[in-house]
Amino acid sequence: MNELDWIHELAQPANTKILMLILDGLGGLPLTANGLTELEAAHTPNLDRLAREGICGLSQPVGAGITPGSGPGHLALFGYDPLQYVIGRGVLEALGIGFPLEKDDVAARGNFCSLDANGNITDRRAGRIPTEKCRELVEILRQIRLPGVEVFVEAVQDYRFALVLRGKGLSPNLSETDPQKVGVPPLPVHALTDDAQPTADLVNRWVAEAHKLLADQHPANGVTLRGFAKDPALPSMGQIYGLKCAAIATYPMYRGLAKLVGMDILKTGETVEDEVETLKANWAKYDFFYLHVKKTDSAGEDGDFDRKRQIIEHVDELVPQMMALNPDVVIVSGDHSTPAVLKSHSWHPVPTIIWSRYCRPDDVDAFGERACARGALGVFPAKEIMRLAMANALRLAKYGA
Amino acid sequence: MNELDWIHELAQPANTKILMLILDGLGGLPLTANGLTELEAAHTPNLDRLAREGICGLSQPVGAGITPGSGPGHLALFGYDPLQYVIGRGVLEALGIGFPLEKDDVAARGNFCSLDANGNITDRRAGRIPTEKCRELVEILRQIRLPGVEVFVEAVQDYRFALVLRGKGLSPNLSETDPQKVGVPPLPVHALTDDAQPTADLVNRWVAEAHKLLADQHPANGVTLRGFAKDPALPSMGQIYGLKCAAIATYPMYRGLAKLVGMDILKTGETVEDEVETLKANWAKYDFFYLHVKKTDSAGEDGDFDRKRQIIEHVDELVPQMMALNPDVVIVSGDHSTPAVLKSHSWHPVPTIIWSRYCRPDDVDAFGERACARGALGVFPAKEIMRLAMANALRLAKYGA
Repeated sequence: MNELDWIHELAQPANTKILMLILDGLGGLPLTANGLTELEAAHTPNLDRLAREGICGLSQPVGAGITPGSGPGHLALFGYDPLQYVIGRGVLEALGIGFPLEKDDVAARGNFCSLDANGNITDRRAGRIPTEKCRELVEILRQIRLPGVEVFVEAVQDYRFALVLRGKGLSPNLSETDPQKVGVPPLPVHALTDDAQPTADLVNRWVAEAHKLLADQHPANGVTLRGFAKDPALPSMGQIYGLKCAAIATYPMYRGLAKLVGMDILKTGETVEDEVETLKANWAKYDFFYLHVKKTDSAGEDGDFDRKRQIIEHVDELVPQMMALNPDVVIVSGDHSTPAVLKSHSWHPVPTIIWSRYCRPDDVDAFGERACARGALGVFPAKEIMRLAMANALRLAKYGA
Repeated sequence: MNELDWIHELAQPANTKILMLILDGLGGLPLTANGLTELEAAHTPNLDRLAREGICGLSQPVGAGITPGSGPGHLALFGYDPLQYVIGRGVLEALGIGFPLEKDDVAARGNFCSLDANGNITDRRAGRIPTEKCRELVEILRQIRLPGVEVFVEAVQDYRFALVLRGKGLSPNLSETDPQKVGVPPLPVHALTDDAQPTADLVNRWVAEAHKLLADQHPANGVTLRGFAKDPALPSMGQIYGLKCAAIATYPMYRGLAKLVGMDILKTGETVEDEVETLKANWAKYDFFYLHVKKTDSAGEDGDFDRKRQIIEHVDELVPQMMALNPDVVIVSGDHSTPAVLKSHSWHPVPTIIWSRYCRPDDVDAFGERACARGALGVFPAKEIMRLAMANALRLAKYGA
């Protein structure tokens, strides 16, 4: 039986609330051989208290050595095996800009590229044109009409855009047009299944029109498309766990991911304080809250160790306000590590606390990578976090008699 | 998707080098209830430094409680699930004596045995005849010719020999002739698949000829054959990981195992010093080096605790020369445990260090079984070591967007 079906069968109602506090890219690395990580260096008396009273470990979003993207990282946190459930790149690109994707839309990630007189690619990123230029070009591409479908073109960032087709019977089973090298023309789209042929024809027609309209726009006189995908139609968290779920996130990507698993998206502001206010205002209405802090990851990606440390400290200062709501279960974790020293997502497992009245505390007395490595959860798959949260919320029935 | 296919898709090139130092049978046990293991008793300042700077754990080659042979133990180290990929006994026997096995050869392990006047087995090991006698008898058996195939007979040790058939369309799907008890005759070979019938006929003919030629050679007047096998045609490490791989090993078995996974086999001498010189001489030419130390296992098999300790200390003294080559990632582990007190391979997980600039060190400050049990890698499958090495070498791309 599918793991989630099985958890669904054990799920039972209870009058308990779960708060999942996600610090994006939480895990880190020391700057020097014997140094502390961002989290270890941070002064976090409130998270330390949760670590001391809770049970700790290092969660592995996808598997040993695997660096997760935000999609797989979040799926794991929500309890979905990220190897079994896959969110296509086109869908993530659309979610990232807050595009209101519908169930049957086909979305692709687009790149502007440079073509020479023979139509061969000379630069796969069109000289990394600025986002402003991208918006101008997207305006031009919005003139293209296709028979029987609505076409949406949206600027993303630099040379990147999203293409979304909306209509009946569209299929995402399409090959990519980016040849992944220069000196050759973009590839035509091929249907990977028979039923995708009409969609392939439409996309090829769109690309041909795009190249006509962009002819004078060198260096951005061509386009490539990849990651054709649809909403993966995931079972909702409400169905699986019997929880009324809400998401609080300042960035569109994370609101989009939460929407894919059926959470209600709560309107919030731009700061973590705003998010905590949103949490308080909605506390009575939901059983489960996903509260996402983006800036830990952004600081890590920027290679700014100290800023990442400060953001962690800032979140720590807000923890007492969250605890004052009397949650029954609190999860503190991240969707992956983003060590400042690597300036990118990484494979390192993520410090994780599960706090509840019934969590059976271990010897961990501070929140940090080395401390969590000694925790009683050990190194464990992130997809088990939701199960453990449900158990601690007394929302999972006994298996077998 | 197959795990190795998936890792292959994530593999990306980088200008980094990985050194995998394998001390065969590394893990041990204390001689007395509260004593130290061989590794813990050894003075290993250099390995201790790697443990302190690296991340440690106990690797499990096959699974909890399972004692691995050298084949499964090494497959796991190279990243192949040893339950999915199996190297037949006949192939291992041929590799162990350095026989140049070809892709379509069928190899079997042979035993000399004693037969009575009725052809029933009275001793399955022919009174454990010495290797010298084995060589004489093998010379006799080399007279046997079979139609359409080449036949190789090679002495191994004591009463053991290897039989290899080379020709077109041979199949290893054959039943064994050893009845595993005395008082009954050797079993005839049966084809386990239809296409194996011609091979079965050839082998039965060979056994009949052998028994004629050995008639006067009591106690070694009979043979049994088992473990019919072919080269398992493993995907190569070069294909999977995109690494140029070299093996340095003093014993033929380990060179053979490395060859099965596509490594280049470097010519070396008989000592660990020779192996380190070979490493230095070839450092520029490869991305990945497997350096195998045999004598830790031999000492364990001999039940010689102190010799095993000394060999570990000797390897430790050579570690600075290896580190002077500036490897980006160093793995120190074993293919299984061989505690002197058991005089055999054992099921105990193996002390393991992964050292790199980006490994996220834990609290472990010495290399030993108890210390590694507290390491941040925990008890983990040995097949994950290569993934972790690849990640630490910045040779694995992000999974998902």
